[in-house]
Amino acid sequence: MALDHNGLVILDRGACLKRLGRTGVGRIAVTVAGRPSIFPLSYAMWGQDIVFRTSAGTKLAAAVGNAVVAFEIDQVDRMAHAGWSVLVVGPCREITEPAELAVTDRLPLARWARGGGAEFTVCIRSDLVTGRALANPQHSHSDG
Amino acid sequence: MALDHNGLVILDRGACLKRLGRTGVGRIAVTVAGRPSIFPLSYAMWGQDIVFRTSAGTKLAAAVGNAVVAFEIDQVDRMAHAGWSVLVVGPCREITEPAELAVTDRLPLARWARGGGAEFTVCIRSDLVTGRALANPQHSHSDG
Repeated sequence: MALDHNGLVILDRGACLKRLGRTGVGRIAVTVAGRPSIFPLSYAMWGQDIVFRTSAGTKLAAAVGNAVVAFEIDQVDRMAHAGWSVLVVGPCREITEPAELAVTDRLPLARWARGGGAEFTVCIRSDLVTGRALANPQHSHSDG
Repeated sequence: MALDHNGLVILDRGACLKRLGRTGVGRIAVTVAGRPSIFPLSYAMWGQDIVFRTSAGTKLAAAVGNAVVAFEIDQVDRMAHAGWSVLVVGPCREITEPAELAVTDRLPLARWARGGGAEFTVCIRSDLVTGRALANPQHSHSDG
């Protein structure tokens, strides 16, 4: 069990991808008009990459075009002092190829908002996948 | 109930601050070595601002010095298709004044990691506080 210098367990890429496959809601960090922003979103895995939908005309839609973004999932139980997080960093692209859309349209992706605008499908390439977990949650409670 | 063009309910600053006061775990987006990153963290409210602790020598510690950051909390129930999120954007600063530290040291802040390094206390000024909620979760399930 490899620890970082903060005492957290380092999750390898395989362990991170396993967690990415189990969740379904994450957060994306993008820059909108020079300001950092975080949006929660529903996602699905497409191979090792992240796929989500967004409506045309949103701030998020404007920000993701070919940008490098950060995407995060976590599970944190503050009371039990237990948790982990996984971070994916990579470039975004809109999926426009009919063959790719035919596949990604079948992914289990919830539609969150109910705007009338067209939705499009975005893929985040998982170039960098890192994760951390609290090492010994049963012992670290006394740290607080 | 004001809606944005995506059909989401716009939460005003007061409603956002109320939610910030009830939670205790959020995520911060920062830029580390030119790459966007998201870290989960335990926080407390200090007036209308966000306070958290981080260990010296971490990537997060290196990134927060006087940077403008995004901080987000959310509560998303994917199955029930219900949820909300609150975003805070503002500059970070380390708290170093003894009088301020005396106050912030008494905030209910968990220590997550167990590194041996010194911890310091960081404040995010809540310049911009925005929030969104799903409008009618009971009706929008059929959208998926």
